[in-house]
Amino acid sequence: MSAPITIALLGGGTVGSAVAKLLVENSADLAARIGRPIQISGIAVRDANKSRGSIDSSLITTDAQTLAASGADIVIEVIGGIEPAKTLIETAIANGSSVVTANKALLAAHGAELHSKAVAAGVDLFYEASVAGAIPLLRPLRESLAGDKIRRILGIVNGTTNFILSKMYDDGADYGDVLAQAQALGYAEADPTADVEGFDSAAKAAILAGLAFHTNVTIDDVSREGMSKVSALDIAAAKSLGCVIKLLAIAELTDDDKGIIVRVHPTMVPNSHPLASVRDAFNAVFVEAEAAGQVMFYGRGAGGEPTASSVLGDVVAAARNKVAGSVDPGQSDYADLEIHSIGEAKTSYYLNLRVADESGVLAAISNEFARHGVSIQAVRQDDVGDEANLIIRTHSATDQDLHATVVSLRNMSEVHDVLGVMRVENGVSS
Amino acid sequence: MSAPITIALLGGGTVGSAVAKLLVENSADLAARIGRPIQISGIAVRDANKSRGSIDSSLITTDAQTLAASGADIVIEVIGGIEPAKTLIETAIANGSSVVTANKALLAAHGAELHSKAVAAGVDLFYEASVAGAIPLLRPLRESLAGDKIRRILGIVNGTTNFILSKMYDDGADYGDVLAQAQALGYAEADPTADVEGFDSAAKAAILAGLAFHTNVTIDDVSREGMSKVSALDIAAAKSLGCVIKLLAIAELTDDDKGIIVRVHPTMVPNSHPLASVRDAFNAVFVEAEAAGQVMFYGRGAGGEPTASSVLGDVVAAARNKVAGSVDPGQSDYADLEIHSIGEAKTSYYLNLRVADESGVLAAISNEFARHGVSIQAVRQDDVGDEANLIIRTHSATDQDLHATVVSLRNMSEVHDVLGVMRVENGVSS
Repeated sequence: MSAPITIALLGGGTVGSAVAKLLVENSADLAARIGRPIQISGIAVRDANKSRGSIDSSLITTDAQTLAASGADIVIEVIGGIEPAKTLIETAIANGSSVVTANKALLAAHGAELHSKAVAAGVDLFYEASVAGAIPLLRPLRESLAGDKIRRILGIVNGTTNFILSKMYDDGADYGDVLAQAQALGYAEADPTADVEGFDSAAKAAILAGLAFHTNVTIDDVSREGMSKVSALDIAAAKSLGCVIKLLAIAELTDDDKGIIVRVHPTMVPNSHPLASVRDAFNAVFVEAEAAGQVMFYGRGAGGEPTASSVLGDVVAAARNKVAGSVDPGQSDYADLEIHSIGEAKTSYYLNLRVADESGVLAAISNEFARHGVSIQAVRQDDVGDEANLIIRTHSATDQDLHATVVSLRNMSEVHDVLGVMRVENGVSS
Repeated sequence: MSAPITIALLGGGTVGSAVAKLLVENSADLAARIGRPIQISGIAVRDANKSRGSIDSSLITTDAQTLAASGADIVIEVIGGIEPAKTLIETAIANGSSVVTANKALLAAHGAELHSKAVAAGVDLFYEASVAGAIPLLRPLRESLAGDKIRRILGIVNGTTNFILSKMYDDGADYGDVLAQAQALGYAEADPTADVEGFDSAAKAAILAGLAFHTNVTIDDVSREGMSKVSALDIAAAKSLGCVIKLLAIAELTDDDKGIIVRVHPTMVPNSHPLASVRDAFNAVFVEAEAAGQVMFYGRGAGGEPTASSVLGDVVAAARNKVAGSVDPGQSDYADLEIHSIGEAKTSYYLNLRVADESGVLAAISNEFARHGVSIQAVRQDDVGDEANLIIRTHSATDQDLHATVVSLRNMSEVHDVLGVMRVENGVSS
């Protein structure tokens, strides 16, 4: 073994502390797997006075910029957010360091720019931990499925919303109550907007879509709808239809293979689908590929140690490349597919309508669906006092036709109220 | 783009045909992902007269040895079995070709020898398709989890037995009937021994254990018990305990981290475990790692196209390395852990005993467990005519102590019959 691989760590929060701990505890194994010993050259933190356990205090600095510029073999960025993370990563790349980051927001906004800087500088830029925490996902998509053609990715990539939706399902409770409980347990932030309104899932959807379809995708390309409006009534309706509700990140090829659609929204998922049994704070990503068929990756999506596991996997890969004098091929965007809006996505809808209980109503409503080219798969009618309740499940149609149908229904005098509307995923065949 | 990456394909069966088809159909995408075009230099088959669809007939040869020696950039071996596959792969390596194989039997018997030949020749030897068909698994274990410490792997890695066990569960049918049905559907071979007696799972367990624990493991190191003795009574008992029965391949660290145990046997798995819902011919591998926690990989374990998807992922990786003039680090066996037998494994048992229905019997039986240091977790007693039925679930103990307890129970006059004995997996906490 010769000179060590030097590692600069930017960030001393939950993930940074777990990364430092694993680097120290597993150093003998890491050295054996890399072929050279590793050495932490510095740890940039916000508060230098905080106790850091077994970490040598001489490694601690508050000057992240100088550490990023120090020319370490590998710079790990686990600060999060756009700035100063972006400038620090650019500094590291400019100084010949390979970069490992867990920063989904940054990758989803400026991924293409950072990837081309890394390629130009001949360094690696790895970010396995940015999507679905501990789950090995980006590397398998980029490498193991590289000889296949991915058609669709469906992901539960946000643990907070999955925890809330699981609780709502189990307890029949309303969103507000379960959110308060999740906040008390530390599963949701004081300001839960990024999670519950789907921004976090949208960033991850952009990263997954870019990798799967070899196209630059940013968070602005993602059609996004949060889950804060999912009601106990929706959950009950899902149960009656043999479904659960999940906030899904979906990236898919259009039918002509020339475009992609990337979207995040609450979705009814049949109990028989492997994603339906992914509960609580767990994440999972379901991939449909032409030759491989259906593949699913499951595990913890967040937390210090799980995220650190992914960061260290990237560190080993980047370190092996440094030892071999090679770099991985940069992020590929050769396909450059057109990105379409959710309106063109083919989906199926569930609707819950309160209607007048008189003859001809079902015919009038059915006509409205037909007029928009939407075909009804199933209807269940229940009398409720002197009104009737219609639970309708449609066949697959474009989202814009379905949306237009709902707008028209709301304007019909026979329709007293639209109690629920949600997209429904089809089951999978074994 | 410059000179093409040349690919020689050895094997024209189900997998070989699917590989050839994907190489042809996806050639533009493959070229973009690799950075150079690909070119099939030859396909070695047994029967040159068989129609091969769109494959250029001038590529077909029956002389596998000459094709293996042709110095192609990459040689794909999908013939299977030990010979001539072993000699062909050695020939390819000796001629500077990187090798991609789906051959579990060969890797589980002679992996270490082939890996060191590949390292000495400076070529890659990849084998993602050898375990769990389409599921990206070996690369994530080797790379994404390389910074973590794997403690345990539990896999459903044989689709035939999982199909049979799923059917037995659904229909309450006996093994023999379901096997006949599986054979009629093409899910089981005319001679099902390799699948149902666990040899196939044992080969895959050896490969997984070697990768996860950086130790040379062969199929001879695996404790193996098939599933042909699983009865409808066992399935019913599993149901009553809230479990399903799966044939699991298990590789685990011993408590002192200095040894490993690798075993294949039928196992009761609680319904709440993610592996319990892996049904029919699907495969899944559940990994417990120190930092990542629980991770699961799910998908199709066999079939031409799914297996070909994995083969092509390896082809892209090997081709990129050829373009970059690099090779992956060889299979690592630095840890060289001692391999223990199943007797030292910590497991929990289910037992179904027919006993005399008289006072003192439960005390006598409990004493027999205690004498062997095995603690009972739960007992259910049902009267059956003038006998009684005891369903016993033990706490975790060494397999040898549990086995010795069962031997003693069989010799007790109060125990009229041992109707069922099976190992039970613990559930997982979310």
